[in-house]
Amino acid sequence: MGERVVVVGTGLIGGSIGLALRRATDAELIAVDADPRSARRAVEVGAAHEAADLETACAGAALVVVATPVAAIVPTVGAVARVAAPHAVVTDVGSTKGPVVAEAERLLPGFVGGHPMAGSELEGVDAARADLFEGALWILTPTPHTDAGAYRRVNALVGAAGARALALDAEAHDRLVALVSHLPYAIATTLMELAGSHGDERVFRAAAGSFRDMTRTAGSNPRIWRDILAANRDALLQELDAFSGRLTAFRDALAASDWDALDGFVARARETRARLPLKGERGVAAPWLLEVPVLDRAGVLAEITTAMGALGINIEDLSMEHSATGGVVHLVVDGGQAADRAAAHLRALGYRPASAPLA
Amino acid sequence: MGERVVVVGTGLIGGSIGLALRRATDAELIAVDADPRSARRAVEVGAAHEAADLETACAGAALVVVATPVAAIVPTVGAVARVAAPHAVVTDVGSTKGPVVAEAERLLPGFVGGHPMAGSELEGVDAARADLFEGALWILTPTPHTDAGAYRRVNALVGAAGARALALDAEAHDRLVALVSHLPYAIATTLMELAGSHGDERVFRAAAGSFRDMTRTAGSNPRIWRDILAANRDALLQELDAFSGRLTAFRDALAASDWDALDGFVARARETRARLPLKGERGVAAPWLLEVPVLDRAGVLAEITTAMGALGINIEDLSMEHSATGGVVHLVVDGGQAADRAAAHLRALGYRPASAPLA
Repeated sequence: MGERVVVVGTGLIGGSIGLALRRATDAELIAVDADPRSARRAVEVGAAHEAADLETACAGAALVVVATPVAAIVPTVGAVARVAAPHAVVTDVGSTKGPVVAEAERLLPGFVGGHPMAGSELEGVDAARADLFEGALWILTPTPHTDAGAYRRVNALVGAAGARALALDAEAHDRLVALVSHLPYAIATTLMELAGSHGDERVFRAAAGSFRDMTRTAGSNPRIWRDILAANRDALLQELDAFSGRLTAFRDALAASDWDALDGFVARARETRARLPLKGERGVAAPWLLEVPVLDRAGVLAEITTAMGALGINIEDLSMEHSATGGVVHLVVDGGQAADRAAAHLRALGYRPASAPLA
Repeated sequence: MGERVVVVGTGLIGGSIGLALRRATDAELIAVDADPRSARRAVEVGAAHEAADLETACAGAALVVVATPVAAIVPTVGAVARVAAPHAVVTDVGSTKGPVVAEAERLLPGFVGGHPMAGSELEGVDAARADLFEGALWILTPTPHTDAGAYRRVNALVGAAGARALALDAEAHDRLVALVSHLPYAIATTLMELAGSHGDERVFRAAAGSFRDMTRTAGSNPRIWRDILAANRDALLQELDAFSGRLTAFRDALAASDWDALDGFVARARETRARLPLKGERGVAAPWLLEVPVLDRAGVLAEITTAMGALGINIEDLSMEHSATGGVVHLVVDGGQAADRAAAHLRALGYRPASAPLA
């Protein structure tokens, strides 16, 4: 069996990571959970080889994945730091990143924040699926302190799970998920709460496809969401205010029968929606290698990876070759077009990248 | 071949009605469209036996289904009134009902308003499907002037299409669709317009399942929606204001970290969502017959059918037997439980219903 990977928190996400790694790698998978029955259940469903307590599990672990609820991430990373080897790489799967990442990397230098953008209304390890992350986006949040080797290992975990890694800084991540995930949750919940207030059985009879689709997340676990809302409150408040302002503009245009304004509004919305990728859509372009000479200074890795994230470019693989004065960062991206955009952007930042198809 | 059914407007809905009737009945199906190529295409895809102009089509027609955009319904009903037999039954499929029904039944006494709650992002007769209405709700809006025979015929059309008819008065219908359809459209469009305003490629990369699901209708045909928004403006404005007020309450509770208020809000939303029927879910209960003696006065049919609609009870079949002083309305509903609820409600309205399983 290969290197040891520990999954702490054997819910839907932790269980699915276990199943995915079991399918794609030869890692020795150890499940840890505050509820030992859940960890044993993870073994029963094939999401881990063994269940153990945290200390036993972390002995000799190459990678620890913290898949607990958001509020438990920092305490768990602290506990891992006390029992794991100093070089252990640790990542998490929390839905908010800013304060969590800052705190976690202070406790454990090998920490790299992560957030797989996949999920389900179902909960628990029995709902886990090896293909939950297939084609999904998995955001990583490197910082100026992130070690290239740790980043590479977590990037490889994402690839093994079938997902696509995208590097963003933690604050950009939090603003982004406030818009695409937490605001939709607030809206779905409000819409459902409004429907309930009508107290009219017909509402439920008449709730057709679009209404069901729009309110799906309103059915999901409120404990998980309470953590998320608390952790990303400021970014969500900002998106709620932006949304309310625009909804009021729509309302006022409708009240005034200002069809020009409404048509423009609707046209912008349609145009934007046409740009959404299809579910599970992923590039099939051939891999290209970018070589980027760098000076050996803090922050260079985060700068380069988040620059790729800002362009929406997925990093398939990443490594760093050190030299006396600095080194060379090797990035693998998908396709010549992505490589061209990446190189142009890196040049604008003052780097001198070279790119070529990966043989 | 059986009786003649004319479908005016061979788009997605009209085409699907044709395909469904062809599968379930022996009706002679005639397609009419302002664009004769579309009517011919309906024949090619099997949604009609023949294409014709309105006058030719309506000669001897037993039923005319007006499946045009909302703004064209009243003019089309007027045109049908000039060429159809005096006893012709006419229905429509428009998304808003109040003013349309009032105007249409003034032009043509055999008019019964209808609205199938089914659709697709796709358009045109090439996207039509025989099973589009399978298990869907199809709202009918009888008025005090509605003829029992006309209602029964339209109710049978709904059943032949595989849908479940629910009677509502036109104003209740318009308030209901403002909540479950038009408000969700306004929200989806606003959410998408907001996402576009961020001008950030990462938004689209990160747009996961719930975001895609919530914004689906923002991609649909703006011409169709413009008609709908115009026709149902007042009801939609009311729901927009109710929604905005509740979203502000959510926002303020979050800003104040008032978790008790938020937990209550979320709990109400979850509880309500758990009551939504599953897609295509329909009763499998055995049919029961209700016999309701009535006086022969205007409005008795609308009163009884919309009373069933208010309870969310689908009328499987309906007929009226006339006598010297009045008559007996026969209603078929699904299951003894529905029959009990219906009978109790009718008794509260002063009727003396009898109910029994249908042999």
